[in-house]
Amino acid sequence: MKIIVVGGNGTIGKTVAGHYKLNHEVIVAGRSKGDIIVDITSAASIQEMLEETGKVDAIICAAGAVKWAPFSELSEDDFYIGIKSKMMGQVNLARIGRNYLNPGGSITLTTGILADDPVFMTTGAALVNGGLNSFVKAVARELDKGIRINVVSPGMVEDSVERIGHLFPGHNPVTMKQVLNGYRKSVEGRITGEVIRIN
Amino acid sequence: MKIIVVGGNGTIGKTVAGHYKLNHEVIVAGRSKGDIIVDITSAASIQEMLEETGKVDAIICAAGAVKWAPFSELSEDDFYIGIKSKMMGQVNLARIGRNYLNPGGSITLTTGILADDPVFMTTGAALVNGGLNSFVKAVARELDKGIRINVVSPGMVEDSVERIGHLFPGHNPVTMKQVLNGYRKSVEGRITGEVIRIN
Repeated sequence: MKIIVVGGNGTIGKTVAGHYKLNHEVIVAGRSKGDIIVDITSAASIQEMLEETGKVDAIICAAGAVKWAPFSELSEDDFYIGIKSKMMGQVNLARIGRNYLNPGGSITLTTGILADDPVFMTTGAALVNGGLNSFVKAVARELDKGIRINVVSPGMVEDSVERIGHLFPGHNPVTMKQVLNGYRKSVEGRITGEVIRIN
Repeated sequence: MKIIVVGGNGTIGKTVAGHYKLNHEVIVAGRSKGDIIVDITSAASIQEMLEETGKVDAIICAAGAVKWAPFSELSEDDFYIGIKSKMMGQVNLARIGRNYLNPGGSITLTTGILADDPVFMTTGAALVNGGLNSFVKAVARELDKGIRINVVSPGMVEDSVERIGHLFPGHNPVTMKQVLNGYRKSVEGRITGEVIRIN
């Protein structure tokens, strides 16, 4: 398979890219480094990336920013940080990317446990993640040519515990292997329209 | 109680407003008519409305537009119709409205079954509804002074069957009385952070 991993330099993305590099052609797309540079907040940038890669068999996205802050301090613009990046970035990746997938190809997006079990300061993240979880279900009912779409919703990954574990009191970390399996289920399996919860 | 019903002239809003008018002070806010005019796509308009009403005991929103179209035809701007209106309109109503609620007051938003069980042409609606369902759960964990927030997610209402029933094949219509009870559960009950599904 020819696979694009958007956010392929991030904590999750590099694991997913590393796995598929063993046996597949992987194109790592990143904001500042990678095989291709892409800014997912820009539909034009996504389109340019896909024009450069040409048709692929799988598009995986593990990218997207969201503003963390107490609800009482979040401005309207703060909410739009997540909406323009993690949310509409991934919507646009699905919207534009479907035209660059070979028949039977797949799109795999990323949300996270904050859609279901938010912690303090994550109203913006919950909004974005919950929206994408429902979006994927709706999109799956409209794709043709055997193209599938799913979203992986990981819990806090053990690799992130040192950095952000204090923000997730009582959350059980998930292993990177469990998370990788979520992406494998989407890319290599036959499911579509699913929220693959890893927690 | 002093209650604002945003979208109080709509199919659901007028039923909710009518119910509370029997025993409470109700302010109907609408885009083009009502006791107060409000444009929920504008945070400034929401703020002006609340400055005019002063402190209230409940804010109910049954308003918000979303673009319906096949996924293959939806532009980025089309998605932003729902994001700016139904999604950020209600986020802003919660964000600004919390400062205009008396202690123990409540915010009740509206989404819909398309977050869970989308039909053709509703990828934009699913995105918005799913986002708000998760948002409400996150916000509830940060409100103080006994202020609560919930969202009512109705199925297709029987009053809408003639107009849009053909778009919801196999969906069982819900009665307006069931829907009204969803709002009553939020406004008069003690729950918070709940998605009150009526279907």
